[in-house]
Amino acid sequence: MVGNISLGEYNLIYNTFSFTFAVMAAATLFFWFCRDQVSNHYKIAITITGLVTFIAAYHYLQIFISFREAYTLKDGVVGATGYQFNDAYRYVDWLLTVPLLLIELILVMNLSREQTIKKSALLGLAAAIMVILGYPGEMSSEAGTRWFWWFLSMIPFVYIVYQLFFGLRGSINQQPEQAKSLISGACILTVIVWCFYPVVFILPMIGFEGGNAFTSLQVGYSIADIMAKAAFGFLIFAIAKRKSELENSH
Amino acid sequence: MVGNISLGEYNLIYNTFSFTFAVMAAATLFFWFCRDQVSNHYKIAITITGLVTFIAAYHYLQIFISFREAYTLKDGVVGATGYQFNDAYRYVDWLLTVPLLLIELILVMNLSREQTIKKSALLGLAAAIMVILGYPGEMSSEAGTRWFWWFLSMIPFVYIVYQLFFGLRGSINQQPEQAKSLISGACILTVIVWCFYPVVFILPMIGFEGGNAFTSLQVGYSIADIMAKAAFGFLIFAIAKRKSELENSH
Repeated sequence: MVGNISLGEYNLIYNTFSFTFAVMAAATLFFWFCRDQVSNHYKIAITITGLVTFIAAYHYLQIFISFREAYTLKDGVVGATGYQFNDAYRYVDWLLTVPLLLIELILVMNLSREQTIKKSALLGLAAAIMVILGYPGEMSSEAGTRWFWWFLSMIPFVYIVYQLFFGLRGSINQQPEQAKSLISGACILTVIVWCFYPVVFILPMIGFEGGNAFTSLQVGYSIADIMAKAAFGFLIFAIAKRKSELENSH
Repeated sequence: MVGNISLGEYNLIYNTFSFTFAVMAAATLFFWFCRDQVSNHYKIAITITGLVTFIAAYHYLQIFISFREAYTLKDGVVGATGYQFNDAYRYVDWLLTVPLLLIELILVMNLSREQTIKKSALLGLAAAIMVILGYPGEMSSEAGTRWFWWFLSMIPFVYIVYQLFFGLRGSINQQPEQAKSLISGACILTVIVWCFYPVVFILPMIGFEGGNAFTSLQVGYSIADIMAKAAFGFLIFAIAKRKSELENSH
């Protein structure tokens, strides 16, 4: 979905993409460098945390390049070049990163091998299906089609939210006291931030039009991605570090 | 803000951007390579020190590219291409790096977890607000608008300066004798260098015009950034190394 955008919108989108790329790249380096700050059995979780922001950094760079190919700003006037702005990068990114985000959270809980595999597979699969079902809706500018896929995509979404609030309750209770609130915090952050996506998705269906809809979608998704990947990842790192310190002090 | 620039100004800006990128990139590599020279509990501080210069290197590269798209120099004549010089990169950079700079300083003090989180949150937030309030002024070429946002931005600025001089006094006094002067030095450097920014900001309001104002702004900010990020970072590294040596000798 592309529309005519104003000068202000052009600059806002332009700077948002550059900013998001910088955040994701910086977060990746932080996670990978500080991997040596956690115990051995949390290193895979922190590696994946950095992979998520790495994959996001790659896609935001591509989105940024694609945007600069689709629009020009010359003599103060924004013009469309006719070249495609490739919106699919986001969905390709999410298909990879959203299951990994849930796996991060499960890995940092340090459950039994059996539980880890089972919960990772179920939540990871649900996340992938959620992203796949959202895509045909996003590609459409017709409200009916968007709503149809939105509803389908909300089924796995609700399942994941339910799991984060109730399914993982038992596992969270087994966590050390000093890490429990951080892990609950990570679950709550996930639910709150993830609720952003279906809301941003429906903006074009509830009155936002043309350049306005395009801008709010791009900026909205970027902010949500920063929260869901970089800020969430930092919380995962804090959990792993806190738990490592507790374990070492025994 | 763009103006017609002379051949000398073009060359000065061009070389300043290239120089600043090279300094930031080299500083980043130095910090990350020398991360193994400090004790484990200072590694996060040094990682962030390198992240700050990494983020700055990225933005200076983009600023440099943007400048080369906005101006050409052919047959000894400087011309504007009509493509935008994106001035917002600086503010996007500062939004990320300025809070991180203060967090570096707090981390290297090795305070209690509680104090670290509290002081990082307060100073980081004040720094982000300061940058956000400066931006609308910078985007304006009208003196009244610039002054208005300059004053608003100075409120968090004064708060941070006060914290660096007085709020951290107690924490500095707890530092080992041999590191105290270095840490005080880092606080003083921050205050002196940071005072550069509001001064550079007002240059266009006190008589500097057109290409002259543009050049003094670009060169002024670049010099201030080198001092505030690379030189300050080196001081942070020196503090961490000194403290690591002291702790190991006990």
